[in-house]
Amino acid sequence: MAAKSPLALLGRFEAKIARANREGLRRMLAADPVLVDVQPAGRVMRGLKKHVVLHAGPPIEWARMCGPMRGAVAGALVFEGWAPDLKAATRLAASGAVRFHPNHQFGAVGPMTGITTRSMPVLVVENRAFGNRAYCMINEGLGKVMRFGANDASVRARLAWLRDVFGPLLGAALRKAGGLELTSLVARGLAMGDEMHQRNVACSTLSLRSLAPQFARLAGDAEMRSRCAAFIAGNDQFFLNIGMAMGKSIMDPVRGIEASSLVAAMSRNGTEFGVRLSGTGDAWFTAPVEMPQGLYFAGYTEKDANPDMGDSAIMETVGLGAFAMASAPAVAGFVGAGGMREALAFTRDMGAITLAQNLKWTMPALDFQGVPAGIDARRVLETGIRPAINTGIAHRKPGVGQVGAGVARAPLKCFANALAFLAQQL
Amino acid sequence: MAAKSPLALLGRFEAKIARANREGLRRMLAADPVLVDVQPAGRVMRGLKKHVVLHAGPPIEWARMCGPMRGAVAGALVFEGWAPDLKAATRLAASGAVRFHPNHQFGAVGPMTGITTRSMPVLVVENRAFGNRAYCMINEGLGKVMRFGANDASVRARLAWLRDVFGPLLGAALRKAGGLELTSLVARGLAMGDEMHQRNVACSTLSLRSLAPQFARLAGDAEMRSRCAAFIAGNDQFFLNIGMAMGKSIMDPVRGIEASSLVAAMSRNGTEFGVRLSGTGDAWFTAPVEMPQGLYFAGYTEKDANPDMGDSAIMETVGLGAFAMASAPAVAGFVGAGGMREALAFTRDMGAITLAQNLKWTMPALDFQGVPAGIDARRVLETGIRPAINTGIAHRKPGVGQVGAGVARAPLKCFANALAFLAQQL
Repeated sequence: MAAKSPLALLGRFEAKIARANREGLRRMLAADPVLVDVQPAGRVMRGLKKHVVLHAGPPIEWARMCGPMRGAVAGALVFEGWAPDLKAATRLAASGAVRFHPNHQFGAVGPMTGITTRSMPVLVVENRAFGNRAYCMINEGLGKVMRFGANDASVRARLAWLRDVFGPLLGAALRKAGGLELTSLVARGLAMGDEMHQRNVACSTLSLRSLAPQFARLAGDAEMRSRCAAFIAGNDQFFLNIGMAMGKSIMDPVRGIEASSLVAAMSRNGTEFGVRLSGTGDAWFTAPVEMPQGLYFAGYTEKDANPDMGDSAIMETVGLGAFAMASAPAVAGFVGAGGMREALAFTRDMGAITLAQNLKWTMPALDFQGVPAGIDARRVLETGIRPAINTGIAHRKPGVGQVGAGVARAPLKCFANALAFLAQQL
Repeated sequence: MAAKSPLALLGRFEAKIARANREGLRRMLAADPVLVDVQPAGRVMRGLKKHVVLHAGPPIEWARMCGPMRGAVAGALVFEGWAPDLKAATRLAASGAVRFHPNHQFGAVGPMTGITTRSMPVLVVENRAFGNRAYCMINEGLGKVMRFGANDASVRARLAWLRDVFGPLLGAALRKAGGLELTSLVARGLAMGDEMHQRNVACSTLSLRSLAPQFARLAGDAEMRSRCAAFIAGNDQFFLNIGMAMGKSIMDPVRGIEASSLVAAMSRNGTEFGVRLSGTGDAWFTAPVEMPQGLYFAGYTEKDANPDMGDSAIMETVGLGAFAMASAPAVAGFVGAGGMREALAFTRDMGAITLAQNLKWTMPALDFQGVPAGIDARRVLETGIRPAINTGIAHRKPGVGQVGAGVARAPLKCFANALAFLAQQL
């Protein structure tokens, strides 16, 4: 059914679409993302003011938000001092006095709930090939963290430390170092078993290594420097948020190319999955989000799980995550996807819905083939192969946190609707 | 021919040998190596006095030493202040006034030329399961370095800095940290594309990560701390020497088991390849060393190359290096061994001459099979499959340095002679 309407309608624009997609691919593969700074979100994102809360995924209002996103919102309102406690924060959020917007609308991304407010320190990635910048909160670590919906005093205290101590120090180290080039870092990470979504141990460790000489030179007392180093050293997922800001900085220049069927963004708010194409402007094409298939931590089952969530699907959008699973056989087990054979199959399947290989990002296990890059929404619809996304699984209730990890699939309906819209425009 | 004599002679001791090898394997797999300290070699190795020089491989006197080893010896004599310059050092070395011994005889190992003298700072690895310790010089980095036979003022200045600044700082960080557990570190490295011989980027970076919080706390000025961090950060092979001391600490308790045909050490001095079995005591069974097959740096060819050299084959002896090539497809290309298929074949072949899999060290690309561990000299002789060794290639002249990397093979004769000796003993 899907194969009939939008694809048939687009058939007569084949040459025009191909040309547009080539330009999109060119921009994507020419990207030169560099982590340059850490700044308070409100300083770098215009319009991120009091009572404005950014979230993951396509637009959503409080009434339809899932549990963990509500939990994170309440925590953020208390953290910002806009409410005295979580109860009052929940009332405030429900009152209509808080404005909610997608991170993507502000040049930002955020993992899982993705809640971003003005005083939070954000990583700043500049795409030097195009001059644009993208932002993402600093990864909080594992366990009870706001991105998974946790919001208690310990969560807020960590955010305050990131804001007051760690963020400024990391920003200073980055400025001293002249930035951290991410294309080559990710290339190394791929040769070291990362897929940069559910496995970031290599890139996290390489980031610390790159910054260690600068860290050692910074002012401040030894104990503080030591605690900052230990914070990075203790979090194998530290790089995820850097990678996400990188992904956003790579994909933003790919937006707005008339007739292009390239996927420019995939994202989820825990309620809906949203897709944007290069050629379809600011519109989000949404469908109900699905439950990831995966493994649960001891004591939890699928009954505890919230459906798929987060802007982190930007990693798959640039050809990493599940698309690069062949480079990260260890993650295949972690997300319950199987062994080496299955890891190779994921990458091969994603090759069928993408237009190129990114030869800056090669996979030794595939004799240095590039990761599959540039999802063509038409190929998704033609083949029925839905983009796979390696993801964490949050508890469906506010305030609990992560309960597992798995693989989610993008709903076909998003691509069908986006292509129908593209056809209409043409 | 080989299959007739020693193997036939040993046939009637099958049960006894199997029992001895089981005990050897038990000790090997029970090892618990921890990097605990850095100390001047002369302080921790009894008998390492003035005019004593330790070298890689089986025993060798000056007259038969290869070019790069002579170059390193001359550099070390100047470094120790035992000669005013390289010319005088060469005369001193040739005069008979310098005593040469294998590192292995002093509980130590050293990569390539392996030259160790009393004031050099050595990494101290303790095998906590058995209480023994093993030593290895700190890796000097790439380029012009003593282990490849270079010996000019820049080489000696770096050694002096390692002795006076870096070594003491690293030792202090290790003592503060309570040591660095190596079994789990290597396990992570295997999941990150290291085989721990020609590729150590993961373990080097993970080591820095583990120590970064301690480094930040140490006394001394910021510039010094920064330079020390940069030294580790700038050397992807930093871990090699830690891994070698680890290997020695693992294999030493496996020595001296009556009737065991397990290989306890493989090593090369650039002239001869030497093998020791668990059941054959202190004797080295030697044969002329071969030329590695590999890739040369720009401007160099096999004509420039010295034959295979170094104690670093201890990595293969414990099941890493070429034995774990399946986990490190990127290294297969670096040593000129091919792609992923060839990398898998190396590990499979080495499985045919080993008695076990080490399940503490698993390979994600092989669905978490353990690395092949415990080389049985009998299997080497039966199958004709010679242990493969991933190795650097030094220029054959003194003072030049590294010219390539490749794969070397242990000569069958070493194993045949060792088994003949074992048979005689029984």
